[in-house]
Amino acid sequence: MGYMKTILSLDIGGTNIRAGLFSKNSTKPFFIKKIRTSGQNCTPLENIINLIAELQQEQPRIDAISMAVPGSIDNKHGVIIKAPNVGGWKNMPLRDIISEKFGIVPSIENDASMAAYGEWKHGAGRGHDYLLYMTISTGIGGAVIDDGHLLTGFRGLGTEKGHMTIVENGPLCSCGQPGHLEALASGTAIAAYVRRKMAEGAKTILEADPAPTAETIAKAARKGDALSIEAYHDAGYYLGVGLANYLHIFNPSCIILGGGVSFSGELFYEPFYASLKQHVLSEEYLAGLEINYAQLGDDAGLIGAYQWSLDHL
Amino acid sequence: MGYMKTILSLDIGGTNIRAGLFSKNSTKPFFIKKIRTSGQNCTPLENIINLIAELQQEQPRIDAISMAVPGSIDNKHGVIIKAPNVGGWKNMPLRDIISEKFGIVPSIENDASMAAYGEWKHGAGRGHDYLLYMTISTGIGGAVIDDGHLLTGFRGLGTEKGHMTIVENGPLCSCGQPGHLEALASGTAIAAYVRRKMAEGAKTILEADPAPTAETIAKAARKGDALSIEAYHDAGYYLGVGLANYLHIFNPSCIILGGGVSFSGELFYEPFYASLKQHVLSEEYLAGLEINYAQLGDDAGLIGAYQWSLDHL
Repeated sequence: MGYMKTILSLDIGGTNIRAGLFSKNSTKPFFIKKIRTSGQNCTPLENIINLIAELQQEQPRIDAISMAVPGSIDNKHGVIIKAPNVGGWKNMPLRDIISEKFGIVPSIENDASMAAYGEWKHGAGRGHDYLLYMTISTGIGGAVIDDGHLLTGFRGLGTEKGHMTIVENGPLCSCGQPGHLEALASGTAIAAYVRRKMAEGAKTILEADPAPTAETIAKAARKGDALSIEAYHDAGYYLGVGLANYLHIFNPSCIILGGGVSFSGELFYEPFYASLKQHVLSEEYLAGLEINYAQLGDDAGLIGAYQWSLDHL
Repeated sequence: MGYMKTILSLDIGGTNIRAGLFSKNSTKPFFIKKIRTSGQNCTPLENIINLIAELQQEQPRIDAISMAVPGSIDNKHGVIIKAPNVGGWKNMPLRDIISEKFGIVPSIENDASMAAYGEWKHGAGRGHDYLLYMTISTGIGGAVIDDGHLLTGFRGLGTEKGHMTIVENGPLCSCGQPGHLEALASGTAIAAYVRRKMAEGAKTILEADPAPTAETIAKAARKGDALSIEAYHDAGYYLGVGLANYLHIFNPSCIILGGGVSFSGELFYEPFYASLKQHVLSEEYLAGLEINYAQLGDDAGLIGAYQWSLDHL
């Protein structure tokens, strides 16, 4: 029996860092560990280094390190241009730091791209070579695979799928621009919609709730709360406008929806799909189009980064 | 000296069909012919077949045939799904027809994609691997190259760069949907803007003109006509909104602008660039971004199809 390659995969999030040790022929890590990104009085970078060192103790022979990071990555140089949620990283030369420390040049990619890659190879996108992956939670992110090619853009900045103007002078986005998809269809948008209408005097069973979230609003909607249903309807409608745009640009054979808001069931899906149908240029964009829910859950980034490293190193 | 490959390239437009014979080492065709798409009392298809036959007389040994077609192409099967401007083609099995007739399996791609490919290899995009090509004339079309990969989409339908909603309930597009980029920034949009304002009583030196076009409006603007300047300003502004969206999605290192409206100079470019700067997520999308005018003019599609065939056959 030949020597079995070991890949250390890390999914670095704003809250947690998850690391897994994979052998070549399985998408199930044989060792996994989760820590807080900013825990133990350490910086995120120190925690990453300590975590790698710890996993190296577990398995001294590591052949590759692969990292998924929530930000804009210059993947030619392995520099994190910007990762607001990870200690405010800016122009962080992560590849050089890790490779000096451990003697292994890591691959570093955007986390939504890696989640899309994982879903493509092992999850909801299997068998499709033209894939649009959208994750709708607090914000909106996404990634695209065209004929097996994962889009990144020149400096890794082509990952901002939520920052598309679809309503001129619409509600302000977290980035400061008006009318972006993220400001209209994300969990944040759903909560903002309810707050806005409540301030205007709309009646709702959420009145006792000082800070309604997408989750509590979904619960209220399931109890029949009209305002809550309306908020999800509005978000679904705008997701349909945005994804019609993306169908015209990318013509995928499969859309994968991930993130908490996506999993609100018919409450969100029905108005979304009706709006998609309404806004699409022609029926041909929907013919044979699969729309699937993401299958890999929290493991998508970890599995994607592992598979990416396997395919590209 | 070895045998020199000959490639027959065709650029099929709604008005004209241009055909060129190229040898392997030159982007200058050694023979070229232009005919009307629907001339000689023949259908476009008959004209294409006759033209290929004529060029075969000129050069009996043709190694490859490459075609650029203004429509949605299922390039896996060589079927034109839709080409409204070429005799209303729908599901036209062009590849099979040509290959049965001439014993050569042609490559068939979208014309904007081929123009982008030509500009990338031999024109305004040389040296860039991340390219956004936009053509702004009567309509708006475009193509994208990411890390040397030309995007097409699953069934060749991912070429509709003008059909992106950017203004909810905005002016109607030719496709029937409201607020698309094409309805706000194309030559048609500029003419519609002037007509709309004239109907509302706006003063303009165009009053004697029964049907102002983007060209006559540009001339009037250069004479200082306020309404005409405003119309170009409005179109440039919305092109900036649309291209900011595309920068966030694709992060190209080069934008190439082609088509008549693009070539209106500062009249269009200044409001466009100001709006692009205003709407972009961060300066990083503009850092090092080249914005070039298309260089190959009417030859872009022909040269692109020739080069595509050379690179892919």
